[in-house]
Amino acid sequence: MKTILGREFPDYIDGYGKVTPFQGALKEAGIKTRKAVKMKCVNPYDSKLLDNLEQAFDKLNMKDGMTISFHHHLRNGDYVLNRVVEGLAKRGVKDLTIAASAIFPIHEPLVKYIENGVVTGLVANYISGPVAEAISKGKLKKPAIMQTHGGRARSIESGDLLIDVAFLAAPTADIYGNINGVYGDSACGTLGYAISDAEYADKTIAITDNLVPFPACPIQISQIFVDYVVQVESIGNPAGIVSGTTKITKDPVALIIAKRAAEVIKASGLVKDGMSFQTGAGGTSLAVALELKDIMQREGVVGSFASGGVTEPLVEMLEEGLFKTLFDVQCFDLKAISSFRNNVTHQAMSASMYGNPHTKGAVVNCLDIMILGATEIDTEFNVNVTTGSNGVIMGGSGGHSDTAAGSKLSIVVTKLINSRFPKIKDQVTTITTPGESIDVIVTERGIAVNPRRADLIEKLSSTNFPLVTIDELKTMAEDITGVLQTVQTLEKIVAVVEYRDGSVIDVVRGVY
Amino acid sequence: MKTILGREFPDYIDGYGKVTPFQGALKEAGIKTRKAVKMKCVNPYDSKLLDNLEQAFDKLNMKDGMTISFHHHLRNGDYVLNRVVEGLAKRGVKDLTIAASAIFPIHEPLVKYIENGVVTGLVANYISGPVAEAISKGKLKKPAIMQTHGGRARSIESGDLLIDVAFLAAPTADIYGNINGVYGDSACGTLGYAISDAEYADKTIAITDNLVPFPACPIQISQIFVDYVVQVESIGNPAGIVSGTTKITKDPVALIIAKRAAEVIKASGLVKDGMSFQTGAGGTSLAVALELKDIMQREGVVGSFASGGVTEPLVEMLEEGLFKTLFDVQCFDLKAISSFRNNVTHQAMSASMYGNPHTKGAVVNCLDIMILGATEIDTEFNVNVTTGSNGVIMGGSGGHSDTAAGSKLSIVVTKLINSRFPKIKDQVTTITTPGESIDVIVTERGIAVNPRRADLIEKLSSTNFPLVTIDELKTMAEDITGVLQTVQTLEKIVAVVEYRDGSVIDVVRGVY
Repeated sequence: MKTILGREFPDYIDGYGKVTPFQGALKEAGIKTRKAVKMKCVNPYDSKLLDNLEQAFDKLNMKDGMTISFHHHLRNGDYVLNRVVEGLAKRGVKDLTIAASAIFPIHEPLVKYIENGVVTGLVANYISGPVAEAISKGKLKKPAIMQTHGGRARSIESGDLLIDVAFLAAPTADIYGNINGVYGDSACGTLGYAISDAEYADKTIAITDNLVPFPACPIQISQIFVDYVVQVESIGNPAGIVSGTTKITKDPVALIIAKRAAEVIKASGLVKDGMSFQTGAGGTSLAVALELKDIMQREGVVGSFASGGVTEPLVEMLEEGLFKTLFDVQCFDLKAISSFRNNVTHQAMSASMYGNPHTKGAVVNCLDIMILGATEIDTEFNVNVTTGSNGVIMGGSGGHSDTAAGSKLSIVVTKLINSRFPKIKDQVTTITTPGESIDVIVTERGIAVNPRRADLIEKLSSTNFPLVTIDELKTMAEDITGVLQTVQTLEKIVAVVEYRDGSVIDVVRGVY
Repeated sequence: MKTILGREFPDYIDGYGKVTPFQGALKEAGIKTRKAVKMKCVNPYDSKLLDNLEQAFDKLNMKDGMTISFHHHLRNGDYVLNRVVEGLAKRGVKDLTIAASAIFPIHEPLVKYIENGVVTGLVANYISGPVAEAISKGKLKKPAIMQTHGGRARSIESGDLLIDVAFLAAPTADIYGNINGVYGDSACGTLGYAISDAEYADKTIAITDNLVPFPACPIQISQIFVDYVVQVESIGNPAGIVSGTTKITKDPVALIIAKRAAEVIKASGLVKDGMSFQTGAGGTSLAVALELKDIMQREGVVGSFASGGVTEPLVEMLEEGLFKTLFDVQCFDLKAISSFRNNVTHQAMSASMYGNPHTKGAVVNCLDIMILGATEIDTEFNVNVTTGSNGVIMGGSGGHSDTAAGSKLSIVVTKLINSRFPKIKDQVTTITTPGESIDVIVTERGIAVNPRRADLIEKLSSTNFPLVTIDELKTMAEDITGVLQTVQTLEKIVAVVEYRDGSVIDVVRGVY
């Protein structure tokens, strides 16, 4: 089978099932379903508080073949996923599927459980570190499923991804299961990626290291969705959960790229009252935010919202009145957490509200400007943020495809080459986000506009922007690096890359 | 068929269907289902804003036989229900079922639509005024269904009550359907009774008189649940929406009852740190709150939460540190609205979180003390708040049955007689709340404790409380009023009284 983007893979993949090929980013979605949920009612006088994880495993009737879910708000400081899987392994449970919104290097202990069959499936929006490498080496029995942030919410709410037990790392919880992320030693801010899990899993358990008297306040996840509560000594390492401060690049080349990107935004005509903006937490992306801030201040523009994973620069723009509100699915730093805790105009959003295409309208639909990164870009503007040029998994879409699809102007900021690898090439190793969703590529050597955006080309042409074609960018890159051979992969499919609507946009094959 | 409470009605009721008889308040609920929801996805560039209600009716494909829902946060100031039904009547739509969380005197125009067949069904938790009288006179084609606040959320979420279109009166909304109740001329505070409707109706439309730039902030109902938005000149009359200030009784007899009730609470041993409390908004109930406040202040007790429809006295207790938080399903006065808007410890709860028995634990399950009113009480402690002693519908459970079932101590405060009617009698006209949920009746002439609560009788006996039996109370009442004849009703069932779990606890028959 060959997709409209020219990628070839079978229409049935062992361990994944029947494949629906990618049909286009903005295909009319029509009527969709949020699935029914069965739950065990909790009556007055029932208690939810359990003594320890072992008792929880008993109560939850944990057994082989289950799908268990985790959120990644504790990022590289998360202790919960490892603790749970280790505990289940000790009980002899096997054949688990881990449905985690993201996997980080701290989850390295998973590798041995992948090797010994305790874990045979993995579904995530982003995978980096030893687990990603193990998957690329073909160690996981079934292909990993790589989703987008909105796509994960969609798959959980639609019933495509059935979760037996959601294990919710809870920075603060009370004995009846009310949860927030703003207090406690492991405070992480909003809990956007945990909402669908809590509401749609067969069973939901809160695991907390900060059990507070009833009721927790504020409540981000309600008691009505939580079956059990268990207290542990620590759910995470604060140093890995958030960075103390957000790092904006000091690299002079990256700063030039950021400046150019801001100029493109200005030239697009989108910088006006009511505008909305999102950027990733990468150093160059954040530098764009600072440049945009300058422009907004100079022109006296007040935007409607900034969104995303929220960082200090966005909080400062809120506090300085440049945006009326923030939509926050996860807090990236301490400043964001504190702002979310104290400022009502800093609003939480669930992953579903953020990017689920099968709702009555996600926030990404309302986005004017999105700043994106890329590992590779092909001459059709398709972007790879899933694998490195060596073919090994090193990330995933996260919100990349969601925001690119929804925003009016999506700009990829990137250097032309990454050490000795060209960023722009004929074929990307993996397609994460389709080129139709990408409007502009800004590099230090030139700016390429997607030919679909004739309107934008016209706007930028009337100025002195260094406009080039994407093919010219590719040639410039290859002039420096030489034409590199495409990485040789094995036949075996180690990961299936789902587009946000659940169709398959690409697969990742094993590496030697 | 005869229920365990001795009420007789058929096991099948025309226009209602098969009857599940009431089986007991705390029957183990087991596994229950939240229903699946179909929705039309909203894609980027789709618009939700419609020109007017007429266009909305077209878009919503309004037709005969539909069930349309409304919330009652605008109470006796609500313009939306009347406007919608009038508009549909003009289009010739008929056979509508109105699923409103409550019906007030302002909804008098419904009477003519009931008479002419535009409206043939009605589901509500509380019905007062001309519509209630019309129902009692047998004018509505199908029996009205009278639910509880928690039971309504349950029926919507389970799929027992299928809503075709939820019409949400929105004090503030943006063009993408984000809604709050804290700003605008028709501000009403929390929107707890609208949440299930918004999330589970086939279609949801926000009707607002305060359309604000995107995004509304704060967001109480998210854009992901709203199909359309329409702006109208006014959704309500502020004078009818909230009272400016809460009225606490000045009646000396009522004040004595309140003082006694507070003493019972104190004697119960429940006045201690972490305690929780709810009271209705009636004058006597509020007077109990003031008495309790005195006790808590004297004893230095800090409670966990107060809940319910929230009034100024509860807000003051929050602000004075007597409770750590409020759980608010509806704001009854301006002080409550302002507190909810400005104080994060004043938290909203949905009707489902408030009282739905088929969740993983509603807030009523966590209640220590509940103060209730009553129209009639029988010698089995069953309470009627649905009909007057003349047999005419004049209210309904609201949260009465929900809180009585959940709370550790439920106290009915009432005078012994109401003008010439005894409040305590052999048989209540209608059973709203089963006697097993009622612990104490406090009157000006004596206090009766439910014999099921031997523990409480023991605690109160050791003091000088004027304890009497419920039969003695009845005799005292009848000594004043004489034994009144039970009201003569027609055979025709005009309303079915559903308990919170959806079983039928009683029926209301027509009056002459």
